[in-house]
Amino acid sequence: MLFAVRMTVALPSDLDPEAKASVVAAEREYAQRLQHTGEWLHLWRCVGQYSNLSIFDVSGNDRLNEILWGLPLFPYMDITVTPLARHPSAVR
Amino acid sequence: MLFAVRMTVALPSDLDPEAKASVVAAEREYAQRLQHTGEWLHLWRCVGQYSNLSIFDVSGNDRLNEILWGLPLFPYMDITVTPLARHPSAVR
Amino acid sequence: MLFAVRMTVALPSDLDPEAKASVVAAEREYAQRLQHTGEWLHLWRCVGQYSNLSIFDVSGNDRLNEILWGLPLFPYMDITVTPLARHPSAVR
Amino acid sequence: MLFAVRMTVALPSDLDPEAKASVVAAEREYAQRLQHTGEWLHLWRCVGQYSNLSIFDVSGNDRLNEILWGLPLFPYMDITVTPLARHPSAVR
Amino acid sequence: MLFAVRMTVALPSDLDPEAKASVVAAEREYAQRLQHTGEWLHLWRCVGQYSNLSIFDVSGNDRLNEILWGLPLFPYMDITVTPLARHPSAVR
Amino acid sequence: MLFAVRMTVALPSDLDPEAKASVVAAEREYAQRLQHTGEWLHLWRCVGQYSNLSIFDVSGNDRLNEILWGLPLFPYMDITVTPLARHPSAVR
Amino acid sequence: MLFAVRMTVALPSDLDPEAKASVVAAEREYAQRLQHTGEWLHLWRCVGQYSNLSIFDVSGNDRLNEILWGLPLFPYMDITVTPLARHPSAVR
Amino acid sequence: MLFAVRMTVALPSDLDPEAKASVVAAEREYAQRLQHTGEWLHLWRCVGQYSNLSIFDVSGNDRLNEILWGLPLFPYMDITVTPLARHPSAVR
Amino acid sequence: MLFAVRMTVALPSDLDPEAKASVVAAEREYAQRLQHTGEWLHLWRCVGQYSNLSIFDVSGNDRLNEILWGLPLFPYMDITVTPLARHPSAVR
Amino acid sequence: MLFAVRMTVALPSDLDPEAKASVVAAEREYAQRLQHTGEWLHLWRCVGQYSNLSIFDVSGNDRLNEILWGLPLFPYMDITVTPLARHPSAVR
Repeated sequence: MLFAVRMTVALPSDLDPEAKASVVAAEREYAQRLQHTGEWLHLWRCVGQYSNLSIFDVSGNDRLNEILWGLPLFPYMDITVTPLARHPSAVR
Repeated sequence: MLFAVRMTVALPSDLDPEAKASVVAAEREYAQRLQHTGEWLHLWRCVGQYSNLSIFDVSGNDRLNEILWGLPLFPYMDITVTPLARHPSAVR
Repeated sequence: MLFAVRMTVALPSDLDPEAKASVVAAEREYAQRLQHTGEWLHLWRCVGQYSNLSIFDVSGNDRLNEILWGLPLFPYMDITVTPLARHPSAVR
Repeated sequence: MLFAVRMTVALPSDLDPEAKASVVAAEREYAQRLQHTGEWLHLWRCVGQYSNLSIFDVSGNDRLNEILWGLPLFPYMDITVTPLARHPSAVR
Repeated sequence: MLFAVRMTVALPSDLDPEAKASVVAAEREYAQRLQHTGEWLHLWRCVGQYSNLSIFDVSGNDRLNEILWGLPLFPYMDITVTPLARHPSAVR
Repeated sequence: MLFAVRMTVALPSDLDPEAKASVVAAEREYAQRLQHTGEWLHLWRCVGQYSNLSIFDVSGNDRLNEILWGLPLFPYMDITVTPLARHPSAVR
Repeated sequence: MLFAVRMTVALPSDLDPEAKASVVAAEREYAQRLQHTGEWLHLWRCVGQYSNLSIFDVSGNDRLNEILWGLPLFPYMDITVTPLARHPSAVR
Repeated sequence: MLFAVRMTVALPSDLDPEAKASVVAAEREYAQRLQHTGEWLHLWRCVGQYSNLSIFDVSGNDRLNEILWGLPLFPYMDITVTPLARHPSAVR
Repeated sequence: MLFAVRMTVALPSDLDPEAKASVVAAEREYAQRLQHTGEWLHLWRCVGQYSNLSIFDVSGNDRLNEILWGLPLFPYMDITVTPLARHPSAVR
Repeated sequence: MLFAVRMTVALPSDLDPEAKASVVAAEREYAQRLQHTGEWLHLWRCVGQYSNLSIFDVSGNDRLNEILWGLPLFPYMDITVTPLARHPSAVR
């Protein structure tokens, strides 16, 4: 089941540089692991913004919620979720 | 070069049923042709809305503009365009 | 899988009264049928508005999209969809 | 009398971890107690957001206000309230 | 139980003058009747707008919904409803 | 001359508890004094929000501005002001 | 008593040209008359928009409402009203 | 003096095709004439939208207003105007 | 050349009281000086808000930008600028 | 390939003055270098705002993203990106 997710990050300006480096590294590892399992299908940077557009392929709403709450940057993110369905004109 | 495009359709309530059927059929054919050429990479229905989320892979801004203005439903669409870049955590 | 759906209806002011009565009756029948099958779990009127808040319990995104596009009033509706998950403090 | 309530939590980034754990635990206990009394009828997580959609069944506006102001997380919440009425097409 | 209601009217520009006069007269009669029964507690014009701010004192959500849907101008109105409670600093 | 005023309070999360108690007490005293003089005609809590809807009956804009700037919580408030006029369908 | 008023005009696209010319002429005459009496203190065009910013100097809310509802273009206008007070740093 | 102007066109869906062709041709001629005189400095299409971003170099606000009101498509346009100044880091 | 400028002030809640008094005094002096030179034509308080509506009469965009950036409260202000032109119905 | 970029800066109110001076100087140098290479085609100040409107001429989305993320003020900026195409009425 597909979902489009837009994540926008706003780090507090007083975040400790080491804490920042650590959470950003954890985020990358988390994102790459889920891409390898196939649940995080696409991950694109929105140009000029600390924001990404992602496509998830998951078993359902509960699993998507579990993944998003598990994001190391979750406390600093504004997230919007758009459920997707097959389009009648899609060829694949 | 990738772009996320969100298209929302609002047909006038007094549109002639035949004119509607004709423009919708033309839209489908147009969308399928561009999917086959590879420029219209993904096409998803946003659940419960007369709206889609699409990913285009084109040579640049002018080509994307040409494609979108050529959509048979263009006069009835509200379109937003988000340029995408490679994300540093993407694995592909 | 649960979804909250907010539907707001805006009928064209020049809609023929018979056509209106007919589509409203079809809408009611459609809503009641899906409530009986259990997919349309809750249906509430938002006070003072031609709008409802509904909870759907469906197999997934594609099924929800199919239900919503099938609404007789769909062409006159503005719809927002919020995927729901189990809340960690829910007792049921 | 039914109300839909959307609560969105934004904890200050400098909140002490123990204070945070304490208020979150108090919130859970508070929510569960009101679910057991029947006033907090439904409690769902909005997928991917520190937000819930709840349905309250209370004696009136004053009681709902009392419940919401009593939420341990109230100072950190953005809350919207939508009064609900019986829908003419509802079967229950 | 008190509710603040903001009603904004937008008449279609092609409404027949007689139909308009008739619905506006019916609206006035309806508003005055409910003021006399005490349910429509206050009715103020918002300066320079085809809009009013009203306070209703009703038995609950279902009754308020019934009153608002019964407004002769309802099909042409945009309505927002704000439930009110007693304020701890109110002297009356 | 009547005005509807909506006041929404956002206290800084690091406000000293004693300073908070003091300013809240001053606000209550201020609100009650003006209710007794008749200038602060109505004061209602908006359900579930640190917000009130008030009606003021004052000599004019300058007096209303003086009252609002004098609110002890003014530095923490977001305020909107709606001038009111007599409604042609009002019975009082 | 001063008020800033922003008026934005949206004429229906199917308005009869003669009716349009007539209402626009009446509007001009109305605006000029009120400028001569001193109630319509300033009238500026907002560059590139069918919109004006005006300052009114009137006896109060009821009189301002009467003036604005009397505008020949009122049915086609979107109007916002901002009450003004003397600024403590104003020299006049 | 420079201004950024964003123009978005919304043609009525029932506009006669000949009238449309005529006004679009007049618009093009008007735009090209002002580009040749140097007042319409830049004219870009916003990708995928019936919208342009333009830079004007004019003697002042009154001249800009005159130009924009003279646009053949003006009655069908939504226009925003942003006054520009020299940027301290600009090299030209 | 006239411009309407709306300035809204939001002072940080942890601003030192002396620093605050100092910047507010400097702002007043700055505003009064420019009113005496004639460039700051009008200065009104928006009722109940830490906000003003001003009219400037300046040589052009660069001069207006210079004035606004020079405001002692500029770092704490949200500013919107609306270029004004002569209105065809203005009598002065 | 052209893009319009609007950058709005919001420096934290507790930023150290030296750190501020340093990042602002770095920003200026960065902006001037890219103007000299030709990629940062235009740079204008939006009057009265800590904001600029820029036009970039770059090889594509990835390059634009690289430039914007490299801005010394990037962590303090809100950025919007509008892809531009050749306008059919442009003469150059």
